[in-house]
Amino acid sequence: MPHRTVGSTIHLSGQLPVGRDVELETAQELARHAALNALAAAARAVGDLDRVRIVQMLVFVASTPDFGQQLNVANAASELFIEVLGENGRHARTAIGVAGLPLNTPVEIQVVCTAV
Amino acid sequence: MPHRTVGSTIHLSGQLPVGRDVELETAQELARHAALNALAAAARAVGDLDRVRIVQMLVFVASTPDFGQQLNVANAASELFIEVLGENGRHARTAIGVAGLPLNTPVEIQVVCTAV
Amino acid sequence: MPHRTVGSTIHLSGQLPVGRDVELETAQELARHAALNALAAAARAVGDLDRVRIVQMLVFVASTPDFGQQLNVANAASELFIEVLGENGRHARTAIGVAGLPLNTPVEIQVVCTAV
Repeated sequence: MPHRTVGSTIHLSGQLPVGRDVELETAQELARHAALNALAAAARAVGDLDRVRIVQMLVFVASTPDFGQQLNVANAASELFIEVLGENGRHARTAIGVAGLPLNTPVEIQVVCTAV
Repeated sequence: MPHRTVGSTIHLSGQLPVGRDVELETAQELARHAALNALAAAARAVGDLDRVRIVQMLVFVASTPDFGQQLNVANAASELFIEVLGENGRHARTAIGVAGLPLNTPVEIQVVCTAV
Repeated sequence: MPHRTVGSTIHLSGQLPVGRDVELETAQELARHAALNALAAAARAVGDLDRVRIVQMLVFVASTPDFGQQLNVANAASELFIEVLGENGRHARTAIGVAGLPLNTPVEIQVVCTAV
């Protein structure tokens, strides 16, 4: 299911863009795309985008062992949340590099948000 | 510790089956096994399996870089939750492929649930 | 941002020590360092270290596919929480091996805690 609510906290399912074997700029674009998908899912869950507050984001980047730029990919998603939601878009964040992702996509984000 | 409760939300520790270097069907069986372990831990935490609601699941699958079927592994665990708990078994989910897991197990799941 | 609070629950951002290509003992030391950083962030978020309760920890260890000792790395962080906070330091935990981490660090932890 796209999200699960407990109290005022909403756990969104992982958001997957498409594509693979990409350059940093493409990965950043995919991260923004995934963040937009998350915002859409959050707005549906809360009923109103203006009441969405992002709490936590886990960013998974399909990475070779020597790719250390996961923060640059994650920043693209973080910045989109803040552009759209302002202060409510700020969040705790963890970014990691993983061996692979479903459908061989290069970026996946998992978001916890809340209604304000 | 097997779980930690905050309000009505219960964070279960990662559930590890055993084995490695497995085929898809075996990975699915191990995912079901891990899901059963999670249900048992949740029932102990809540006191009654009938009051367990699954909120969120993170599925980690030890993967080579070109293995894109993490969703098929995760589905096995998701379906077990829904078989056992019905509507209360539905959840937000994120599946990723990782370089390796503790004890060289091929599948690990992390579950957040709540008491209803 | 270093943390995001929702109700009494505090989601801390991933804590990164520095260094890479390390031995087990060094990884354990880095895990303790990351746990100390998390405690400092939690104390700032809650206002008082004595009121911090750890709920959940995700431990990411940059790993080659055949490294199965992620639990030994994670134990170093878990033990530090319990040394400092006693019963309030106990937590649900998931440890995984990942392809790589931001800044090529070998260990990252993500913590959810609460104020008591």
